[in-house]
Amino acid sequence: MELKVVALAGGVGGARLAHGLYQALAPENLTVIVNTGDDFIHHGLAISPDLDTVCYTLAGLANPETGWGMADDGFKANKQIKLLGGEDWFKLGDRDLGTQLIRTERIKNGEKLSDITRDFCSKWGVKASILPMSDNFIQTKVETKDKRLLDFQEYFVHQKCQPEVSGFLFSGIEKAEPSPGMIEAIQTCEFVIICPSNPWVSIDPILSVKHVREALADKCVIAVSPLIGGNAIKGPLSKMYRELEIQPTSITITKHYSEIIRGMVIDKLDIQERDEIEAFGIITKITDILMKDISDRKRLAVEVLDFGSSLLPIL
Amino acid sequence: MELKVVALAGGVGGARLAHGLYQALAPENLTVIVNTGDDFIHHGLAISPDLDTVCYTLAGLANPETGWGMADDGFKANKQIKLLGGEDWFKLGDRDLGTQLIRTERIKNGEKLSDITRDFCSKWGVKASILPMSDNFIQTKVETKDKRLLDFQEYFVHQKCQPEVSGFLFSGIEKAEPSPGMIEAIQTCEFVIICPSNPWVSIDPILSVKHVREALADKCVIAVSPLIGGNAIKGPLSKMYRELEIQPTSITITKHYSEIIRGMVIDKLDIQERDEIEAFGIITKITDILMKDISDRKRLAVEVLDFGSSLLPIL
Repeated sequence: MELKVVALAGGVGGARLAHGLYQALAPENLTVIVNTGDDFIHHGLAISPDLDTVCYTLAGLANPETGWGMADDGFKANKQIKLLGGEDWFKLGDRDLGTQLIRTERIKNGEKLSDITRDFCSKWGVKASILPMSDNFIQTKVETKDKRLLDFQEYFVHQKCQPEVSGFLFSGIEKAEPSPGMIEAIQTCEFVIICPSNPWVSIDPILSVKHVREALADKCVIAVSPLIGGNAIKGPLSKMYRELEIQPTSITITKHYSEIIRGMVIDKLDIQERDEIEAFGIITKITDILMKDISDRKRLAVEVLDFGSSLLPIL
Repeated sequence: MELKVVALAGGVGGARLAHGLYQALAPENLTVIVNTGDDFIHHGLAISPDLDTVCYTLAGLANPETGWGMADDGFKANKQIKLLGGEDWFKLGDRDLGTQLIRTERIKNGEKLSDITRDFCSKWGVKASILPMSDNFIQTKVETKDKRLLDFQEYFVHQKCQPEVSGFLFSGIEKAEPSPGMIEAIQTCEFVIICPSNPWVSIDPILSVKHVREALADKCVIAVSPLIGGNAIKGPLSKMYRELEIQPTSITITKHYSEIIRGMVIDKLDIQERDEIEAFGIITKITDILMKDISDRKRLAVEVLDFGSSLLPIL
């Protein structure tokens, strides 16, 4: 398709739809803006989990079973780390460690994350533009009901999302600049797709970066629900909503984005939610949003692109 | 044996004799002092090649084919480093990377290399005391005939010992303190064994650390020649001697150490060199110094220990 599209994405779910879009669009017409709020320093390495998941997925290098990490990877380093008494809860693969080592070295040498990512993508053969939401270090913090403030990976991986959440903070967000070219990409695209990622911890950080909401205000934005029948395919979204005493439905997702979206894509299982969503003035597309395999990614991407196109002004 | 012994060691050859001594002695009676002059920072990691070779060898974790690196290791990280345009000439194994990551993290947290090494050894099940020659960062530099000053690993691994050498420097040596307990270990041992390591770049750095020569002056020190028929088993020693216009023989090695040693162990192939060595007043032991397999290590160690014992005063 000839459309210019920007996708906002977090980890595995977002990466899968981004991969579908990558297959459906001319690669130069796709920009994926990726959450970096869950970036962290681990064993001295600057790790960008969502960015890697999106890059690896588009490059065809992702582990097909987990969705994160690299295919054909091993865990010899991580086993040695454990043996030596180091923290081994973040499962760093051996191949993946190569990425982390070189990224860390280049960041320490003063290079920007966006420049490093562009270079990595060229080496991995990814022709779409993948942008971290910022070159500044932003840290998503999870507030828990027992009054702790956890780093995202501590909450998500180490504590396996067990703590009950009461809110989220994006430390460093006020001073963070959008990465170079990101706002221009939004301004010059036909429409923006919010991928089926966690609104609280994957999409909100992106939306909170300076100038992003203003740029989106003029755009046709559509969101793909990350919930089917109130459940997330992966991750703690449904649990988070219950802990925040909000019912996890596609209506809830719609409300979350209501100020910025024109269209909403929900699963056929949630068809009964359509009327309430459309009552917000938001046009709804019903389809099968589960991406079970690679062909599903493209199928959903094409449906989303067709839906988005239908929402554009005729001129 | 009930003897207290200190061994001075560099990389593979030194590690093999140290391993023999470890099998022949009660472990609490063996201290191995290891060269750290070839330590370097690579991809942000604090790497101690000789220290790792000695520890891995005594732990039974060393790669039996190369002598360096770990057994059952992979190179997935290094391949990824290469793909991303990083330097891949130093073959960091994946298991080994776990060691480097934890050591680097702990050094950055202010821990001493000697403390980290003791802890690693306890986790690897090594019961002898393995001491880096210093907790300070010392860098062996290779002066070349074309007037360059190369970092040791740059010379040794990256440039494969191709440049012709004219001398050696140990940058940082003046300010380096011996690691805690090291001088005391020398003072309280029965005798000191200089392992069959490179005198220029493995043993001289240790001998150059403050207080080491003074401590050795009162001791019975014996050296095991690293040359057989003028050739080194591994490494560039023979080539270095030729470039320095010195004939590589066990006589040359003896002269190198003549101020500190009482006994010299040379190969049976070099039996004709005995008279000249003994003319320096140094007692010579002739044996088979090649360690082809693990049993050879213990056999040579026992011979060296017997020889050393024979040189001790009777009281």
